[in-house]
Amino acid sequence: MAAPISAHFIAAPGGTFEIERITAVCGEPLANATSLHVVPSVTPALEASAIWKLRGSTGHVRYVEQAEKSALARVTPPLGRPEASCAAMIPIRKSDAWWELAQDERRAILEAQSQHIAIGLRYLPAIARRLYHSRELGEPFDFVTWFEFAPEHAPAFDELLAVLRSTEEWRYVDRELEVRLRRA
Amino acid sequence: MAAPISAHFIAAPGGTFEIERITAVCGEPLANATSLHVVPSVTPALEASAIWKLRGSTGHVRYVEQAEKSALARVTPPLGRPEASCAAMIPIRKSDAWWELAQDERRAILEAQSQHIAIGLRYLPAIARRLYHSRELGEPFDFVTWFEFAPEHAPAFDELLAVLRSTEEWRYVDRELEVRLRRA
Repeated sequence: MAAPISAHFIAAPGGTFEIERITAVCGEPLANATSLHVVPSVTPALEASAIWKLRGSTGHVRYVEQAEKSALARVTPPLGRPEASCAAMIPIRKSDAWWELAQDERRAILEAQSQHIAIGLRYLPAIARRLYHSRELGEPFDFVTWFEFAPEHAPAFDELLAVLRSTEEWRYVDRELEVRLRRA
Repeated sequence: MAAPISAHFIAAPGGTFEIERITAVCGEPLANATSLHVVPSVTPALEASAIWKLRGSTGHVRYVEQAEKSALARVTPPLGRPEASCAAMIPIRKSDAWWELAQDERRAILEAQSQHIAIGLRYLPAIARRLYHSRELGEPFDFVTWFEFAPEHAPAFDELLAVLRSTEEWRYVDRELEVRLRRA
């Protein structure tokens, strides 16, 4: 298995991504900023200039079953495609009620009721996605999902967000930010 | 949901638990030590005297289904029972092959084939258990399981370990330590 990938998301001048806008979809907002660094580790100088910082780490799948895993692997593109100049960072926290559920209950809400995995598949390979887990790191969000896509796929990305936010699963989301970005 | 409980396991003089023995069941051993601290956070002085240190954090269930969760809740005792003067700490790491499996494949090995949850239930309430997750913290082990039981249940505990180690699931364990303890 590929080693986990750690990422720090630092809002500070001079980053690789320009922040176009930050929307507090639900719950407490994040301060406005204009530039985002996405880095594997943080220097003291960068830390000192941070308006805010989040972090996460990739890991094994938590809900995806074998057939879904194969389907995803067949169509998932890499990050960093030259044409994918648009990006988005979606930090999410789920409620205590979600985390109190058993594994089969969470899976049923996530896929049987909400089709989270099936919906994501529909937008591949246009919209590349990487999920970082943050909950276990004691972060203010449980996950940070990172997306990359070409400008012509921005409407499809907006649709993907709208579809997911209308699901049963999203009733358990108690904090969500949407940070829209462009490669600087 | 109860807030996650963080624990640091520090082998250093003056701890609450006496180390009776440390066995490297498979993979690299840990250095011998005679005393273990189990603390929510670490002072610089304690850190400086540490022979080794591990840490983990409790969290939501990863495989347990709703019926199993209820059954476990009915019979799970608290930690710290006065009669439970014996303890054991079992740090485990699973192989890359395990983490590469999809959720349904891991659940099938853990419960359908290996009956991990059902076996644990058989030894409740005699043997109290708390699972700490360490993998996401970048620790050398994926989990630290903590057990407490009265001296007369030590043979049952040995049996529990032997049964679990004979399962299909344990073929994916590539490092395991067994640290046997007594309340100092």
